[in-house]
Amino acid sequence: MKIAQVAPLRESVPPRRHGGTERIVSYLTEALVRLGHDVTLFAAGDSSTSASLSAACSASLRSTPRMLCPDAPVSLLLERAFGTHAENFDLIHSHIDLLGFPLASRCRTPVLTTLYDRLDLPELVPVFQQFSELPVVSVSESQRGQIPWINWQGTIPHGLPGDLYSMHPNLGRYLAFLGRISPGRGLEQTIELAKRTDMPVRIAAKVDAADRHYFEHIAPLFEHPLVEYVGEITDDEKGDFLGEAYALICPYDWSEPSGLALIEALACGTPILAYRRGGVSEIVNHGFTGYLCDNLEEMAHTVAWVPNLDRRRCRLAFEERFTVERMVQDYLLLYQRSVHRENDQSADPEHRVMRQLVGSVTTEVARTVEAA
Amino acid sequence: MKIAQVAPLRESVPPRRHGGTERIVSYLTEALVRLGHDVTLFAAGDSSTSASLSAACSASLRSTPRMLCPDAPVSLLLERAFGTHAENFDLIHSHIDLLGFPLASRCRTPVLTTLYDRLDLPELVPVFQQFSELPVVSVSESQRGQIPWINWQGTIPHGLPGDLYSMHPNLGRYLAFLGRISPGRGLEQTIELAKRTDMPVRIAAKVDAADRHYFEHIAPLFEHPLVEYVGEITDDEKGDFLGEAYALICPYDWSEPSGLALIEALACGTPILAYRRGGVSEIVNHGFTGYLCDNLEEMAHTVAWVPNLDRRRCRLAFEERFTVERMVQDYLLLYQRSVHRENDQSADPEHRVMRQLVGSVTTEVARTVEAA
Repeated sequence: MKIAQVAPLRESVPPRRHGGTERIVSYLTEALVRLGHDVTLFAAGDSSTSASLSAACSASLRSTPRMLCPDAPVSLLLERAFGTHAENFDLIHSHIDLLGFPLASRCRTPVLTTLYDRLDLPELVPVFQQFSELPVVSVSESQRGQIPWINWQGTIPHGLPGDLYSMHPNLGRYLAFLGRISPGRGLEQTIELAKRTDMPVRIAAKVDAADRHYFEHIAPLFEHPLVEYVGEITDDEKGDFLGEAYALICPYDWSEPSGLALIEALACGTPILAYRRGGVSEIVNHGFTGYLCDNLEEMAHTVAWVPNLDRRRCRLAFEERFTVERMVQDYLLLYQRSVHRENDQSADPEHRVMRQLVGSVTTEVARTVEAA
Repeated sequence: MKIAQVAPLRESVPPRRHGGTERIVSYLTEALVRLGHDVTLFAAGDSSTSASLSAACSASLRSTPRMLCPDAPVSLLLERAFGTHAENFDLIHSHIDLLGFPLASRCRTPVLTTLYDRLDLPELVPVFQQFSELPVVSVSESQRGQIPWINWQGTIPHGLPGDLYSMHPNLGRYLAFLGRISPGRGLEQTIELAKRTDMPVRIAAKVDAADRHYFEHIAPLFEHPLVEYVGEITDDEKGDFLGEAYALICPYDWSEPSGLALIEALACGTPILAYRRGGVSEIVNHGFTGYLCDNLEEMAHTVAWVPNLDRRRCRLAFEERFTVERMVQDYLLLYQRSVHRENDQSADPEHRVMRQLVGSVTTEVARTVEAA
């Protein structure tokens, strides 16, 4: 198939350090090329790929903070991917969320959009109502449940290359936190957990410009002798960081839709302690690859049970459910369906009417909630 | 005519305090309604207008920093203005810069875009090359000169309602700085000028989140006894702030394309001391409504000459060149031309080929500069 992959410009593909979406786009793109597909990657110019690269800017937006008009390369990306070059492809796979919707809905080539972020925000309802016909893919069932009435084509959890991380068989000595320093990510709870259980905690996390204020607010917590802040780390560093941990700690205060960090931990054989929320609950097999808890007290008690978990079982769960081979096969099935449906033109009118109806009701509910 | 005005969502229309583009959109919209046109304003929901308001979000993005997905209302604005509702209009006037280009180029209704910002940024060249056919309007000749080969329809300087500010006949006692606290805006030079001339300076300026770091860096300068920082001010406050000033100080370090603050000063009868750069030079009539200088030394000498300027002449310059009545007539002429040309379909193929050629050469030059 001739396939376009449209990536955000914020990070390079793959990202130098943290950056979930761009990492998944990279794994998927390289796997499709290996399978013999003709793939074009629309992305920042400092991306590295075996597909053809169409660069809307010379380097990722995050690495060029001096660029005064980031809208410029975004406009160019939209125009090229969904306009000028669209007819060269059998299918366009968009990873740029809502920004692509207005052009995707005018594109003659079928466009499939994977939604990576949380969907429980009131500002999203009118947009999804407007674009309720656009075919979308969720990364977890929980994410889909946040806005069930749009045109879901399937749920495809993230997948990683099997050889990216290796199994670390030995029980580690520290708690690990991996991700972004941002409110709701559970960093404060993780540090509190370390204090309550008297275990060291290591924190590998990036700080976006928008979260700089929050970072400065919580930075004093890092001075505690049990806490070590290691900043943003590379894939190479991540293997040992996760693999040598006692457990990955995920007391997320919100419905994290994907949980890429959890999948990375499983690949290293490291179990997970997480709050029972969002897509996280779909990754952790409670009592086998980690424990799902309702609050910090419960998590503090549960820490002692981690040695009962078999680290080989964690790695096995990764190999069975979260490899890039599984992800790429899932996507290829949807790609083929999208292309066939486009050829058939057989949209189901009854479903469409139902979606629009549910969309209207949901909008009214959202308005009422907002007004209250 | 049935006209759509498409405003940025960042500020309400008009903005509560500072915000140049949204202010101009408001003046233009209200003037068009007064002239009997059927106008729809696409803007944030807390806008206030006598036109029909189509709100993509309930409040401006700047007033809702908690909104986690600002792309959502932007997508909705684009879809509604250039898609769903486009056929209701004879003409769509876009004030949202490049973001509107991909949809504007697919819109069946003629779209005219006013460009408000500087155009001398390397990231803009490939975008304008892609969209070189889209009809655009400049706010100064200097701005147009930064990228002369695109499809310029005219230069229309900003205009304000004649009764918004009143003539202040008396020579004030302080230097005034008005605008945004941001590198290159000449704030440090203005404070240096106050010190050299031993005159008090009052600073009315907003601080965007992106400039918070710079603000903290220069905030110690505000502790000097000659300096008073008054923050962001309303239109009501602005009349006295500008009118009671000795002169408005504009030592901009860059090619400011429009200079709305200068026009506001003239409306109050207040002369201008500015660096001879960008659109500023087109507003100040040297030796009559202010002085254009090449550097701070020259400006420091020139401060003493301000009493030679006639404040009535400043107000007169405003009334002759910068009223909303003049601006709306200029725009109506372009609106009519756009609608007629659309009906004719008589684009000049020779001009188009020339623009594309010049665009290609300019891109190569930009690439060479960037690579160097």
